[in-house]
Amino acid sequence: MADSPITSREKDFAAWYQDVVLAGDMAEPAEIVKGCMVIKPNGYAVWEILQRELDNRFKATGHQNIYLPLLIPQSFLEKEAEHVKGFAPELAVVTIAGGKKLEEPYVIRPTSETLVGHFFAKWIQSYRDLPVLVNQWANIIRWELRTRMFLRTTEFLWQEGHTAHSNHREALEEVFRILDVYAEVAEDVMAMPVIKGAKTQAEKFAGALRSYSIEAMMQNGLALQAGTSHDLGQNFGKAFNVQFQTNEGKLDYVWQTSWGVSTRLIGGLIMTHSDDKGLVLPPKVAPRKAVLVPIYRKDEERARVMEVAATLVA
Amino acid sequence: MADSPITSREKDFAAWYQDVVLAGDMAEPAEIVKGCMVIKPNGYAVWEILQRELDNRFKATGHQNIYLPLLIPQSFLEKEAEHVKGFAPELAVVTIAGGKKLEEPYVIRPTSETLVGHFFAKWIQSYRDLPVLVNQWANIIRWELRTRMFLRTTEFLWQEGHTAHSNHREALEEVFRILDVYAEVAEDVMAMPVIKGAKTQAEKFAGALRSYSIEAMMQNGLALQAGTSHDLGQNFGKAFNVQFQTNEGKLDYVWQTSWGVSTRLIGGLIMTHSDDKGLVLPPKVAPRKAVLVPIYRKDEERARVMEVAATLVA
Repeated sequence: MADSPITSREKDFAAWYQDVVLAGDMAEPAEIVKGCMVIKPNGYAVWEILQRELDNRFKATGHQNIYLPLLIPQSFLEKEAEHVKGFAPELAVVTIAGGKKLEEPYVIRPTSETLVGHFFAKWIQSYRDLPVLVNQWANIIRWELRTRMFLRTTEFLWQEGHTAHSNHREALEEVFRILDVYAEVAEDVMAMPVIKGAKTQAEKFAGALRSYSIEAMMQNGLALQAGTSHDLGQNFGKAFNVQFQTNEGKLDYVWQTSWGVSTRLIGGLIMTHSDDKGLVLPPKVAPRKAVLVPIYRKDEERARVMEVAATLVA
Repeated sequence: MADSPITSREKDFAAWYQDVVLAGDMAEPAEIVKGCMVIKPNGYAVWEILQRELDNRFKATGHQNIYLPLLIPQSFLEKEAEHVKGFAPELAVVTIAGGKKLEEPYVIRPTSETLVGHFFAKWIQSYRDLPVLVNQWANIIRWELRTRMFLRTTEFLWQEGHTAHSNHREALEEVFRILDVYAEVAEDVMAMPVIKGAKTQAEKFAGALRSYSIEAMMQNGLALQAGTSHDLGQNFGKAFNVQFQTNEGKLDYVWQTSWGVSTRLIGGLIMTHSDDKGLVLPPKVAPRKAVLVPIYRKDEERARVMEVAATLVA
């Protein structure tokens, strides 16, 4: 790191963060694509570890992976009033494809609740089809004005879980089951303590009844929202007409949840553990590990060896 | 499968293929997004197995994963004359983002050689920086007129490897090293025999000196291109000015390769093994495996048990 001096946290926390990301060769800004970054091998290797830890837990709790299209017909976003209001300012819109102007533009997914609503309506007819528990690993575009590598980028990588249930109680159990998974990965894998709680109505996901999150405390004393789990109620079920026959033979709308964590986790990891000398990663997410084994015969040697060892560890 | 009758291969091979995909619940067309599909849990689980088998081999041969932006400035495509000619008709173009018309539109990546060229020029200065051996797992959009699930879809999932070398010999070694990896996964994992060879100049990748591929024979007697490995020569190096200082202190352009396999592999897998009764997957890529253990005491029982077992296996 000798060749890339790092701003101290005390002097300028934001500059320190950027210096650590660059000096650790985790990512670099992709200036030619507004607000995007290149995730470099050191950064991507951490993401692969987090993916595996999360994916194993999703599967252990009964979820299956699927893949939905990147593009969403623009009209889909408008079917849920709060949802479109929340996401409209951030959309990237495809208006030309295959050399022709499109009759209806597509938006690049800012999240996939609307596509999920469309397909859930095809897949779910009866209470016997429920619950549906799916997840996808995908890229997302939200046109952000101010971006910072990993923490807020125009494009980011994430997972988005989507589930449908026959009643509100089961949907809420799912919301909290996943919040627990997120907290477990944050604390046990990333060594990043978090607090679980409900977001205010102003901060909730656009289209949810209520949003819950894990919040981590960064070294500058600010909280970082590190993962969210949403109780969507029947909002998307009604918008996309996802009805099912109950076991009493009546028709009802499904109760849905959605939940996600993203490459932002890597930003939280960096801001939790790193110091003024540069990147620090906890053992479970470090792609490369080194163990120092001090070797000496006499006590005088021990002191000298430990002195050198201390400079390597620090 | 009783509820979804499958067209026989003899009657209509294309209809048979679609019936097998649907009856096996591998994927379904996403009509609302032109030429796209939803990859369902059965299909995605096969993709995860193929990803792991490929990724392990890429890492064992010295490659690291990175992630580059989805969007590419339109002008980038135009820097390599053959490349833009090949891909221009298939592009999806983002012209509006964040509520505003963009000064320069972005295209959704149809492949990433142009972005790679831009970043290699930043990362490579000296022969000591070479080789650069990277890969990314990503989604791709190519606006296709005629689509078939897995085999040719507007959006597909793939991996794209990109490497830079100091001379043509090493680049060619890389091209063939990867072709061997692809053939090994096709034959040893997918039980799908392939022939390795060079594509004609008319069929090569737009911008390559020469393209090599693995070709598999489908049950209708047609070959399926199942993976490609390209010798890019110095074409992209010159287009993006990726120069390095040689160990004699001169300046030269890097020699590049690129190579990819996609979710099309799943189509090949289906067309290699399935029959008129439906989906057949070889053991190493089957997400769920069942073993029949016939149990009997006397020879008469054996005959009866084996008869029933035969109906389950067939």
